[in-house]
Amino acid sequence: MSEMFVGIDLGGTNIKIGLFDSELKLISKTSVATKADMGPEVVIDKMARTAKRLLVKADLTLQDVVAVGIGTPGPAKYSEGIIIRSTNMPKFKNVPICKMLNEKLGTPIVFDNDANVACWGEYAVGAGKGVKDMVFFTLGTGIGGGIINNGELVHGCDENAAELGHMIIYPDGRNCNCGQRGCVEAYASADSTARRAAEALEAGAQSSLKKVLDEKSEITSKDVYEHLAQGDKLAKEVTDGTAKALAITCINMLHTTEPRRIVFAGGMIAAGDVLLNRIKDFFNEHIWTIKSESVEICFATLGEDAGIIGAAALARHTNKQGKIK
Amino acid sequence: MSEMFVGIDLGGTNIKIGLFDSELKLISKTSVATKADMGPEVVIDKMARTAKRLLVKADLTLQDVVAVGIGTPGPAKYSEGIIIRSTNMPKFKNVPICKMLNEKLGTPIVFDNDANVACWGEYAVGAGKGVKDMVFFTLGTGIGGGIINNGELVHGCDENAAELGHMIIYPDGRNCNCGQRGCVEAYASADSTARRAAEALEAGAQSSLKKVLDEKSEITSKDVYEHLAQGDKLAKEVTDGTAKALAITCINMLHTTEPRRIVFAGGMIAAGDVLLNRIKDFFNEHIWTIKSESVEICFATLGEDAGIIGAAALARHTNKQGKIK
Repeated sequence: MSEMFVGIDLGGTNIKIGLFDSELKLISKTSVATKADMGPEVVIDKMARTAKRLLVKADLTLQDVVAVGIGTPGPAKYSEGIIIRSTNMPKFKNVPICKMLNEKLGTPIVFDNDANVACWGEYAVGAGKGVKDMVFFTLGTGIGGGIINNGELVHGCDENAAELGHMIIYPDGRNCNCGQRGCVEAYASADSTARRAAEALEAGAQSSLKKVLDEKSEITSKDVYEHLAQGDKLAKEVTDGTAKALAITCINMLHTTEPRRIVFAGGMIAAGDVLLNRIKDFFNEHIWTIKSESVEICFATLGEDAGIIGAAALARHTNKQGKIK
Repeated sequence: MSEMFVGIDLGGTNIKIGLFDSELKLISKTSVATKADMGPEVVIDKMARTAKRLLVKADLTLQDVVAVGIGTPGPAKYSEGIIIRSTNMPKFKNVPICKMLNEKLGTPIVFDNDANVACWGEYAVGAGKGVKDMVFFTLGTGIGGGIINNGELVHGCDENAAELGHMIIYPDGRNCNCGQRGCVEAYASADSTARRAAEALEAGAQSSLKKVLDEKSEITSKDVYEHLAQGDKLAKEVTDGTAKALAITCINMLHTTEPRRIVFAGGMIAAGDVLLNRIKDFFNEHIWTIKSESVEICFATLGEDAGIIGAAALARHTNKQGKIK
């Protein structure tokens, strides 16, 4: 009997599943369409069948699986294994996903939100390896977060901790989708970065991005970084706005849970050092001078597999701790 | 043999010592002048002798003491029991306080910074009782902080977590003593509250506080709240600035470690409901609308004894956990 772990990344579009050995080495992985409109029964059945197929291909059975980890966007009661609802899967309402999947697989199921799972993946085997205190940001449509304190994820009193995109850095600043003003997400997510560029162009700013907006009727953060590389002034200003907002948030996290490492993930890190170095510049400019700080700010390394790796890693950790149900 | 705990609050001016039973009921307490200029040997010897005297008076001996807790301002290596240096006790440099006190008392010593110790006191037997996730602020000359996550203090990678006064809420805002700009401490500490009032008066603001400044050449936060009670407009503006800064910080903590309760302590809470209610008003005005929050914002209840109670409570907790050295 082997000691294997299955990691599942349940998204609105695709279900990604990976099979890992006890050292978290990827044995095999696959991706299938979620087809969330078929409802939770069908989706969960598909998850179970896909996992079993991966096992068969690897000459293994469910007996070889110690635990299965799942990550999905909230809101959910993670410790109770229930998806409360899901923006991208409208038919998922109060779904006891852990119970349902356990009935089909017979294995213990570990469940957490997608950002926490990706954070744990980076912590276990990615950019956070070797530290005990880490903060994690995903820079996508919004900004998600995860906090690891003394080797454990911080969940908070209602399992909604680490909503780091909604830390307010400019009170009375830009409106955020959440109803607050001045959230870091309203400045530094991929969407907000692109939106700030578009707004500046609409207000008459001179930039090579003008042509992109005229031709495509929209701008993406990728456009901003491409034009930044070509020396565009507006692209630089917009990038600086993003980097400064993220740097202030890093400082605030340093003064909160004091991580040794801060890891950025998500689509926008494709921008590379041009973004990372500006974040570090603003961090150094704004951080206190009464003591020197050794926090490391870096990009994630696991890429798109962070979800399945993290889910498997969290299942392994929860099992090791004897906290598995 | 009883199971007693000693709590010590080591400050630059006074050493407060309390003797507590296993339910953290105060048996007796005392306060002696620190006389820090006599150096660490003398001060630590005085701590030991004073503790022994409390025991004798209560018909107890060191055999009855399970553990001794000490809180003191940093910077220190708390887990190693060493005071690195101290602003108010210049002769304290790299003092192995735990080892030195243990040699005199023979009991295990638990050591943490003063804000964490007071935070733990409120958590164990004060305003934080009954929750597992709490955030704590002391509003004094500066703003100190403590975070309890899932029933444990958050210490961070270098034992400098929860420097909550230095969370930046207005990037490029007011200068803070720490070298940053826009820290909540630069707006909402007792000193900053008074300073903002004085600055407004010097800039020509009309206020009944003008007479205070002219007569005493200085203004305290107590003056601000007294004149607020009398309906002074400037006092109201200054208080609102303090309350808003604290409310934004509460929101940021909610999105970070998600406490069930946020507790404010320190001299400034003498202002009472007039301050607390404004903090809640600004919190409700600025918090997101996508979900309702049930965090409770309240004032500390232990008063000046928080330091000794917290030190004894932390000693008891550390002992219960089997982590005592």
